[in-house]
Amino acid sequence: MKKLFQFMLMTLAFAVCAPAQAQQITGPRGSDDMKIGVAGFSYRKYRNIDEAGALLKSMEVKYLSVKDWWLPLTATVEEMNAFKAKLAEYGVEGYTLGPIYMRSEADVDKTFAYAQRYGAKMFIGVPNYELIDYVKAKVKETGIKVAIHTHGPDGAAFPDIRTVVEKVKDVNAGIGCCMDLGHTFRSGYNCAEDIVTYKDWIYDIHIKDETAASKEGTTWEMGRGVIDFRPIIQALRQINYKGVISFEFEKNPDNPHPGVAESIGYLRAALDFTK
Amino acid sequence: MKKLFQFMLMTLAFAVCAPAQAQQITGPRGSDDMKIGVAGFSYRKYRNIDEAGALLKSMEVKYLSVKDWWLPLTATVEEMNAFKAKLAEYGVEGYTLGPIYMRSEADVDKTFAYAQRYGAKMFIGVPNYELIDYVKAKVKETGIKVAIHTHGPDGAAFPDIRTVVEKVKDVNAGIGCCMDLGHTFRSGYNCAEDIVTYKDWIYDIHIKDETAASKEGTTWEMGRGVIDFRPIIQALRQINYKGVISFEFEKNPDNPHPGVAESIGYLRAALDFTK
Repeated sequence: MKKLFQFMLMTLAFAVCAPAQAQQITGPRGSDDMKIGVAGFSYRKYRNIDEAGALLKSMEVKYLSVKDWWLPLTATVEEMNAFKAKLAEYGVEGYTLGPIYMRSEADVDKTFAYAQRYGAKMFIGVPNYELIDYVKAKVKETGIKVAIHTHGPDGAAFPDIRTVVEKVKDVNAGIGCCMDLGHTFRSGYNCAEDIVTYKDWIYDIHIKDETAASKEGTTWEMGRGVIDFRPIIQALRQINYKGVISFEFEKNPDNPHPGVAESIGYLRAALDFTK
Repeated sequence: MKKLFQFMLMTLAFAVCAPAQAQQITGPRGSDDMKIGVAGFSYRKYRNIDEAGALLKSMEVKYLSVKDWWLPLTATVEEMNAFKAKLAEYGVEGYTLGPIYMRSEADVDKTFAYAQRYGAKMFIGVPNYELIDYVKAKVKETGIKVAIHTHGPDGAAFPDIRTVVEKVKDVNAGIGCCMDLGHTFRSGYNCAEDIVTYKDWIYDIHIKDETAASKEGTTWEMGRGVIDFRPIIQALRQINYKGVISFEFEKNPDNPHPGVAESIGYLRAALDFTK
């Protein structure tokens, strides 16, 4: 009788526990294959790093590209260490610096010195075209790579990755691209194809949705614009992209967080569901 | 020469425009196959319907289950019409009422009269077990269906859909289930299997993530708990579910919106990427 009772208990335990375990995630998930980040520009009106850090933590976002309003180019190593420790309290790593615009050799010197004090292996920069050779020399000297941010069809420098390739020429020069997928899409290029074609040039990714595949398109929450993200995520998987995918949100600067959170959720599922 | 120039222009236009169009969504997407909603309980501290409506609009969520703090059970038809018009300003439909607890025949009468004034075809209700026959008669009399909300392993009535089936018995009685997937998961049941097994009983869905497949589990943002949503979404597709999937968030009652937005983004991608 006691045996029967034990058996019944075990059967009950199995019936109650086993099926749910079948739908419970225990191992790595698709979103663990990539690093999900946020481009600091999204929180451009949140200049208190505690506030920005808490928002990132609330979404379990672990990577932030650090804009200079949080960490000025004049910051000392001590100030940088304090900043990193502060971010770490929120489980966040300031994985890169920038975008930083460089309009003179002095700007280039200052920016590389800044990145060097930070211990960055790479920063996001936008040099004037005539400074490319000077930047190349600096990369060689410091070992710090530069990801040139692309800006789309609005007339700014480096509209897309083709210009980076054209200006830098040598894929081994340590100057690559922070590919802005929204601007790429607005320029009429196929992001997925560009990711595969220029894979060796891609150091960082800014992701976002857009309202149109034209100059008139504006940034939108992921999944509610007109970009089909499936081929893009598949392309990033195909090239075995190991960098960060940072969501950048130009919309709602006064209250970006709900739109960022919605997009981070979308991105996370896009990664989970493509594995 | 002019012909050649025209040809070159056309080629350029194709090169610039065609690839992006290939990744541009123009037709229906996976998330158009289902109605994404929010359970009003998520915004239980946002009792100003303008505030709640604006939050829903910001996510393009079009369906809300209406709790009685926005529309009391004593509301007149005129008050109800004003409420509906107000929600419509935000592009939102109050697609159902409740959950409403019914502990006496008088409660049942009052609730059905409320649903009838609202013009609801269905409401979410939780009757005492002994009132089931009385509710059945009311369904027959009014043509208004009842979706019984399930509450999981915490000791409340109707822990899961099995109890609904056991108490109601007749699948054609117009009493079905608002299946709470979080509570179902916490009870140790496989949500996907339950959806398929009990498909004719499912009138409404409350979706959420959980921190554990046990009584100790608590609601979490979708994609950051331990539920694997892929088989669940696939099961809903398999049964050709035509109701609303409403996200319900017990977490962060004082500031639920970022977590709701993150989860709505996750749900939207889950639907887009399973088509």
